[in-house]
Amino acid sequence: MIYEIAQIEIRPGTQEAFEAGVQTAAPLFQRAKGCHGMQLQQTLEDANTYLLVVQWETLEDHTVHFRGSEDFKAWRALVGEYFAKPPVVCHTTTVANPF
Amino acid sequence: MIYEIAQIEIRPGTQEAFEAGVQTAAPLFQRAKGCHGMQLQQTLEDANTYLLVVQWETLEDHTVHFRGSEDFKAWRALVGEYFAKPPVVCHTTTVANPF
Repeated sequence: MIYEIAQIEIRPGTQEAFEAGVQTAAPLFQRAKGCHGMQLQQTLEDANTYLLVVQWETLEDHTVHFRGSEDFKAWRALVGEYFAKPPVVCHTTTVANPF
Repeated sequence: MIYEIAQIEIRPGTQEAFEAGVQTAAPLFQRAKGCHGMQLQQTLEDANTYLLVVQWETLEDHTVHFRGSEDFKAWRALVGEYFAKPPVVCHTTTVANPF
């Protein structure tokens, strides 16, 4: 299992619309191959900066299957207009979970 | 509850020592006021870049109480030598958890 962590900076004043868009889009992720969870976090340092954290079985489930799908276009259609710039995305795997 | 998310880039070739240092340091976090969890993630894009994710009850539990403690100095003494540059830290709160 891996995490997709997308840092998304949105245009000021669009928080409410962006968060509603993420909620509306959740079923697109939930039905995606290998997608096991989704969480939206907002940074305390900047209310216009969010982290979208999505759990995938494999990297390719995100980068190939989801990004190549019609549902990805639908996702971007729901929230893309609020982006201040392209999201910065990385993927991680857990190497230690002490407590 | 909030998350501290520290992006830590380490010097090439120090992964094993760094990961062992984090494990050794875990009790310092576990006994810190308001600390409820700790996870080390490694990015798939760059094996020298990690995310340390720590759960705190409040922002101040991290930024005031922990950073002002002797245990913080002990933490940095265990892992600081492996850092390639100062970690980039942000704090987040969960605004949506669809599934």
